[in-house]
Amino acid sequence: MSGTDRSRAGDWVPQGPFCILVEPQLGENIGASARAMWNFGLNRMRVVAPRDGWPNPKAVAMASGAGRVLEEARLFDTAAAAMADLQVVYATTARPRDLIKRVLTPEAAMGEAAALTAEGARVGLLFGRERTGLETEEIVRASAIVTIPTNPAFASINLAQSVLLLAYEWRRAVAAAEPERLVTNRTEIAPQADVDRLVAHLTARLDAAEFFFPEHKRPAMLANLRNYFYRTPLTDQDIRTLYGVIRALGGRGT
Amino acid sequence: MSGTDRSRAGDWVPQGPFCILVEPQLGENIGASARAMWNFGLNRMRVVAPRDGWPNPKAVAMASGAGRVLEEARLFDTAAAAMADLQVVYATTARPRDLIKRVLTPEAAMGEAAALTAEGARVGLLFGRERTGLETEEIVRASAIVTIPTNPAFASINLAQSVLLLAYEWRRAVAAAEPERLVTNRTEIAPQADVDRLVAHLTARLDAAEFFFPEHKRPAMLANLRNYFYRTPLTDQDIRTLYGVIRALGGRGT
Repeated sequence: MSGTDRSRAGDWVPQGPFCILVEPQLGENIGASARAMWNFGLNRMRVVAPRDGWPNPKAVAMASGAGRVLEEARLFDTAAAAMADLQVVYATTARPRDLIKRVLTPEAAMGEAAALTAEGARVGLLFGRERTGLETEEIVRASAIVTIPTNPAFASINLAQSVLLLAYEWRRAVAAAEPERLVTNRTEIAPQADVDRLVAHLTARLDAAEFFFPEHKRPAMLANLRNYFYRTPLTDQDIRTLYGVIRALGGRGT
Repeated sequence: MSGTDRSRAGDWVPQGPFCILVEPQLGENIGASARAMWNFGLNRMRVVAPRDGWPNPKAVAMASGAGRVLEEARLFDTAAAAMADLQVVYATTARPRDLIKRVLTPEAAMGEAAALTAEGARVGLLFGRERTGLETEEIVRASAIVTIPTNPAFASINLAQSVLLLAYEWRRAVAAAEPERLVTNRTEIAPQADVDRLVAHLTARLDAAEFFFPEHKRPAMLANLRNYFYRTPLTDQDIRTLYGVIRALGGRGT
């Protein structure tokens, strides 16, 4: 996939919330965060005082395919500076004990963020240091807290994974307005009349073979059989196949 | 956090869908997948033919804190064997071009999975090889496909991240509310091994009738036919009915 984003450079539009990494230590984590962002269409990164300087070769190596996120990232000295021009910031952290602040799920936060962004707000997501997370002073500046609902017995989750889950929820939120796609590929789902004909055909063949026996059980047996065929959407292809199967099993060849 | 799960060993209850890793190459990815599972309360892993053998020291090192997931993981030779006792399996993969099968979002799939699990179904999540993903034959056996809605310009997402997102949606689903029932009544959904036997039986009968003609089209025809049977959850009742149908159509009466 490397370079795919470059080949579509024309599609590159800075978009979505600013992802602010506060004093990240490992270049690998920065690169993995860039990938996680771009996986879900986010591309505006801000990096606060990275331990190993900037640019960071390990970050670049890890980001392969999402390198442009790093190239266009902005560097800041403090978290406060990185948030200064933003209007609403969500801080990802465990629920703090001492601060009174709204605590949101990732879904709720990104739902809000999508609505605010659509209104033209500049929104940020704040991610803390690998080991020690965010400091109280940094959380204080946030508009709200986002807490990922992990297993209480095993809550530790790494930086890029936090970014991934927030970016995922961002994309879900912006896609929510669009209809959710279910089902299939290009083949058409058959109209029910076609299923009716198939079932009638099969029923006639089974009646001829005295399948529905004893007679008083016929209605229930038939209902079960028909239910089976109506339960899944059958495609045109499926129907052709099933006619063929019925014919073949009846010994009349293809 | 390391060891937190052990200190609460009394809380350890095997729970949630079985996460099946098919031929994972890197121990680090297996370990990271174990962490991702346990982050959201999943702890039943199955590993199919891991490239570097089992147990894998790199997996253990990476899994720190979630080591018990690995200790209790079960090893299988093939994906089919790892699915044999499961009733509903979701395959994580990009939307396939040639198979007709339901394609669900992670949210929709885990919502279904939670409802089915609440009814006592044995559910699996199938994850492919790092580079090449799942093979068609493996996807065919799944009840439905789960596609993570990544950025089309940068869709590549790693194994542990896929596991993380599905596990996250699982936890969201079980936390969401109590089961809304899908599917059936009292009848049990058949384990996949029963479907295997039915399909093998039918295939043999169709081969005898020279159904798969011309020969070079046999693989595609067979894949379509098999896909049809794996696509819907078949109940024990359905399976008995279908054996009866095959027998009746073959003219051997009831």
